[in-house]
Parts: sequence; structure tokens; C-alpha cells
Amino acid sequence: MSRVYNFSAGPAMLPESVLLRARDEMLDWQGSGMCVAEMSHRGKEFMAIAAKAEADLRELLGVPANYKVLFLQGGASTQFAMVPMNLLRGAEGADYLNTGSWSKKAIAEARRYGRVNVAATTEDEHFTRAPKQSELKLKSAAAYLHYTPNETIEGVEFPYVPDCGGTPLVADMSSTLLSRPIDVSRFGVIYAGAQKNIGPAGLTIVIVREDLIGQPLAGTPTMLDYKIQADNDSMYNTPPTYAWYLAGLVFQWVKDLGGLDAMAVINQRKAQMLYGVIDASGFYTNPVAPDARSWMNVPFTLPTPDLDDPFLKGAKAAGLTTLKGHRSVGGMRASIYNAMPEAGVQALVAYMAEFERTHG
Amino acid sequence: MSRVYNFSAGPAMLPESVLLRARDEMLDWQGSGMCVAEMSHRGKEFMAIAAKAEADLRELLGVPANYKVLFLQGGASTQFAMVPMNLLRGAEGADYLNTGSWSKKAIAEARRYGRVNVAATTEDEHFTRAPKQSELKLKSAAAYLHYTPNETIEGVEFPYVPDCGGTPLVADMSSTLLSRPIDVSRFGVIYAGAQKNIGPAGLTIVIVREDLIGQPLAGTPTMLDYKIQADNDSMYNTPPTYAWYLAGLVFQWVKDLGGLDAMAVINQRKAQMLYGVIDASGFYTNPVAPDARSWMNVPFTLPTPDLDDPFLKGAKAAGLTTLKGHRSVGGMRASIYNAMPEAGVQALVAYMAEFERTHG
Repeated sequence: MSRVYNFSAGPAMLPESVLLRARDEMLDWQGSGMCVAEMSHRGKEFMAIAAKAEADLRELLGVPANYKVLFLQGGASTQFAMVPMNLLRGAEGADYLNTGSWSKKAIAEARRYGRVNVAATTEDEHFTRAPKQSELKLKSAAAYLHYTPNETIEGVEFPYVPDCGGTPLVADMSSTLLSRPIDVSRFGVIYAGAQKNIGPAGLTIVIVREDLIGQPLAGTPTMLDYKIQADNDSMYNTPPTYAWYLAGLVFQWVKDLGGLDAMAVINQRKAQMLYGVIDASGFYTNPVAPDARSWMNVPFTLPTPDLDDPFLKGAKAAGLTTLKGHRSVGGMRASIYNAMPEAGVQALVAYMAEFERTHG
Repeated sequence: MSRVYNFSAGPAMLPESVLLRARDEMLDWQGSGMCVAEMSHRGKEFMAIAAKAEADLRELLGVPANYKVLFLQGGASTQFAMVPMNLLRGAEGADYLNTGSWSKKAIAEARRYGRVNVAATTEDEHFTRAPKQSELKLKSAAAYLHYTPNETIEGVEFPYVPDCGGTPLVADMSSTLLSRPIDVSRFGVIYAGAQKNIGPAGLTIVIVREDLIGQPLAGTPTMLDYKIQADNDSMYNTPPTYAWYLAGLVFQWVKDLGGLDAMAVINQRKAQMLYGVIDASGFYTNPVAPDARSWMNVPFTLPTPDLDDPFLKGAKAAGLTTLKGHRSVGGMRASIYNAMPEAGVQALVAYMAEFERTHG
């Protein structure tokens, strides 16, 4: 067996120690005689697994007691609807920041439920920077401000948390949650699809302040009502138990590494290594403003698109996979989430240097 | 390691050969150097896994070409909303059969979107039988007829497929799909949470006739629109890839056993063995009319509730777990889905006979 360094934007690499443990427990979780996927979600074994995962996530992020942590299904795309359905509460509309492909999708979905004020957009600049605080044209009557701290496709992230006064701040943290410490108390809702830093696809983490729960729009499906999910501890119906378990193993792995402070140091080092090589090369280009470059998703282009195929072919032969950029941006994209080892980034930059030497 | 016979109503046992294969492929799926959970859902490896799973399911069930097969999230409880949101299409309401706890939940959710005509109910009889075709008071203007072929909690199943003329028939087959052959062409929509006969929790199979797709109610979340999911081959956003893969392994396992005809023979044999012991005992009781007894979920009571704890304790010691009945019914429930080996049912009936001998 030869593991590859997989730079997929998500689903993405999982820590090898997590996979090894899941493998070892596949037929018998801790003497239970069952795979976790076989356990009743109401049984004491799974209840313990679920509770430990939540407790570890709360500890890692420092989630205050007045926030619920939900383990849901449907991905961020389902949250695009759940946020307005649950948070509009009679307000005319909400503020949204438009900073990339995922912001745009969130905005389009929100428009189906209320008025959206685009409080800032960088679309004219091809989403290559984050708007400054002073540029945000917030409405005082907005039910909430929604933004995307890290845009997976464009590789652009906010170097700051927007200040929106007393308005609840909602963040799609799909590609950034767990990559570094955050101050949860600044947010009303944080949500994240699991398939980047957390675990397998099919699990969605939602962290929601308790006072924002309740009073959904008429016609909100029961399963999309934060209150129903919160009141039932994410077990109104059968939750995605195996994904929850794997996420719990990932949380334990982050704790063992030293928590989010340690994770941030490693992630920043990986990102700097890659951007450093790009900037020094004169061969590779990243278009994003330096202060808004993503630690997680690093898009870059070669001098000409003709070189893309040879680059990808050589990379694959070197065990470096899924580097093709999103079709809307072109070129390459290296996603370097938590589980991408530093050795993987080192192998990538070594390959990039060699490719430049032979094709530059 | 000692595997148990786990009679959970779901999540439930998975075939041991499926778990062994998943274990062996955990760090490296077929030389890819990746766990399936790490693969991009757009990559050629996962696209092949997904396509094979769908093809195998279509083959097993004989799904006609004019039906879409969707691999979604959210469980049957999400379908309780998706069905009316997608199928009402301007009709005043729909017909529902009320034959157990899950029917009731489906009805309650549908009432939020339109008028529900309860075309038959057995609630007065504690859901211990299926209504006859002649009892169904169907409305000609109904958008569809919804029923629950197998009620997981009460252990009651329809011995026939209702005839509703040209009205689309919608079935929550969560606890019965894949247990035997069905004629898909008689249905408009079939849906099933995976965690009984199909795979892990977190995956929902929806089989929908193409002419019923489109025209959702205003305000239907994009993710809950069958058309969006169908047009995007269940990849409008990231699907639950690992659950999809495990379901594919289960489909292959059913094919290897001889398909649904063979599965039905085994399942009927298991059910008859268990009901036979109950009926012959004078100690154990099952309240369901013989023609409507579930092959999948077998509830039974002991002469007095005082015996429940000793029964469960002894069963657990014998490696027979999760036999406690649902709180709304009491007593015991043995769920004997596809992956419960005949040896498991044999062990259960042997234990029951011994318990009766020592406590009768």
C-alpha cells in the first residue's frame, strides 16, 4: 500500500491515525461486538461516542455554554436555506458579504426567503481580496450578517472577523473551522460541512447561540428547524452516526496535537511554505491579495494552460493528487487542510521547483 | 473479538463481509492510496463507485428507466417534507394511510403543506393490522397516496400493494426496501433511510418517477427539490460519499447472495422461525394479525413486564443485544433485517425457549 498526498478541496485527507483506528474498530468497537455504524443511536455505546465528540469539539473551540452544537446532515448548501428560515424572524432581510463562489450560492438561496443586502462585494475584482471593515455597508435592521470566512474555490479568506454591532454574525466555516482558534462568542451561527477539516462528507456541524433558536418561517420543514434539532440533541431522527464517530476521532487527534493553537502554527507554516515558493518563482502565480490568502486552499496558475496537463501528470506520478483547480478559476489548487502533513506540502513544493526547472 | 447478534431497529447490523472489505480498504481503496472517505466526489474513483452502486441497486430492484435513483441525506423524516413539497403541485391535498408511528409522523409533516385525507387508519386497533384495500377511502383529486409498507415500531406490514388507480403511490420503505422483490413500476416515489437494510445512517435512497419531478412548492429549499438533485445526479453538493460506498458494498453482497428473490426466502424463513416460537409458546405474545406481521421487526411481550429486565440481561450475556422494545409498545422487539444471519435468529429462539423453561 502506498498512500498519496491528496490535495482535494473536499472530501479531503483524513489523519492516518484516525483511519487506522477506524480500521481496527471496524468489526468491534471497544469490545461491544459491533461496528459503530451498526449501533443504535439511542444505545449507551453510541450516546457516549456522541457526547465525547461534542465535548471535545466544545473544548477545542471554547464554545460558550449558551451555544448549541448540532450534528446535522445536508451540508452547507442546506444551511444556506436553514439560516434565513430560522433567523429572519420577521425582519425584512439580512446582510451578506459577497466574496466568492460559496457566498454567491448562500446569497441566491437567502433571496428566496427575504431581502438580501449585499453589504460588500469583491466580484468585480474576481474575488481576489477581502473587503475591509470600513467598506461594509451594513443595515441596522438586518436580521443577521452572513459571510464566508474562507472561500474554498478562490482561496481568499478574511484576515479579520467583521464587526456588525449587535447584529448576529453568521459564518460558513466549511473550509476553515478547526484550522485555528476562533472566538465563538463573536458569532450567532457557525456552520461547516465536515468534509474538509472535520471528517467524512455527510455531516454538518452547526454552532448556534441559543437566543437565535425558535420562530422559524412558516413552512420550514421540521428537520430544518434549529429548535427541533437542538431540543432533541441532533437526534430527532437517526443522525449520521458513523460520520459523527469519525469526526470524534478527528477531534481527539487535534487535541492530541495540542489543540487549535498548535494546529494554527502548523497550518500557517504549510501555507507560508507554499506561497513562498509561488511568490519566489516567477513561474507560478497566485492572484490573491497577500493579507487575504487562504491557509487552506491555495490556487495557482502556471505561465500557460498548456502546462497544466504535464504538471498534473507528473504530480500524480509523484503521489500528489487532485491538484486541478476549480473550472471557474482554472490552473491548480492545493487544498492543505489539517490532515495534510507538512511532508505533503514539502513534497509538493519540491515537485513544483523541479517542474519549473524543467519547464520554465 | 466476539461479534454480537444485534437486533437493533436501526442503525442495524451490516454484513460481516462488507465490514471486512471496508476495513481492508480503509487506508487504500484499490490502489488509489486513499480511503473512499478522502476522495473527491468529482474524481473518477468515486464516480465509478457511485455509478456501480446505482447500477447494482437498479438491477436488484428492476428499476425502470423512467425513474431516477437519488442518494440523499436527511433520512425519511426529511422525505416527510420533501414528498408534499415536491408532489402537491397545486392539488388541494393527498391521501395518507395511518398504520403506525411513522405514518403518523409523515401525516403530521404533510399537514404543514396541504390537506391530508386519512384514507384509512388502524389507530383504534393499536396498529395491529393492515387495512384492506376495500377499506381505503381514496380521494380522486389527491396528489398522491402515501403509506408505510412496514411500520418499524409496531411490526406491522402490508401484505399487498395498495391500488390507487392513476394516483401516484408513495411509500416509506425505510425498513423494508431490499428485503424482497418489489414492482417499482407500481410506485411514484419510494424512499428509505439506509440504516436498516442498505447501509449506515446518513444516506437516504429516493426512487422517483421522472414525471413527478419539478414544480416544487414556493419556498422549497434548493436541497429539498427533487429536480435539483436529479439533474445533478445527487451531487448538487457533496453527497455522503462513504455511506454511498458502504451501501454499494451491501448491494454487491445482496447480488452475491442471489438477489432479492433469494433474500426474500431467507428473510421469510427467519421471520417464520421467530413467529413460530412465539405462537407455540403460550409465554411470548405478538399482537399483530398474522397476515400483517412484519418480516423485519418482530415485537413480542413476556407474560409480565417484570420479566423484561431478566430477559434482556440474559440475552445480552448470550450475545443477543438491543432487544428492548420501543417505549410506545413495550416488551421486546427483534429486528431481523437482511444482515441478521439465520444463526442469529436460531440463537435468539434457543435463548427464548430456555428463558421460558426457567421462567415460565
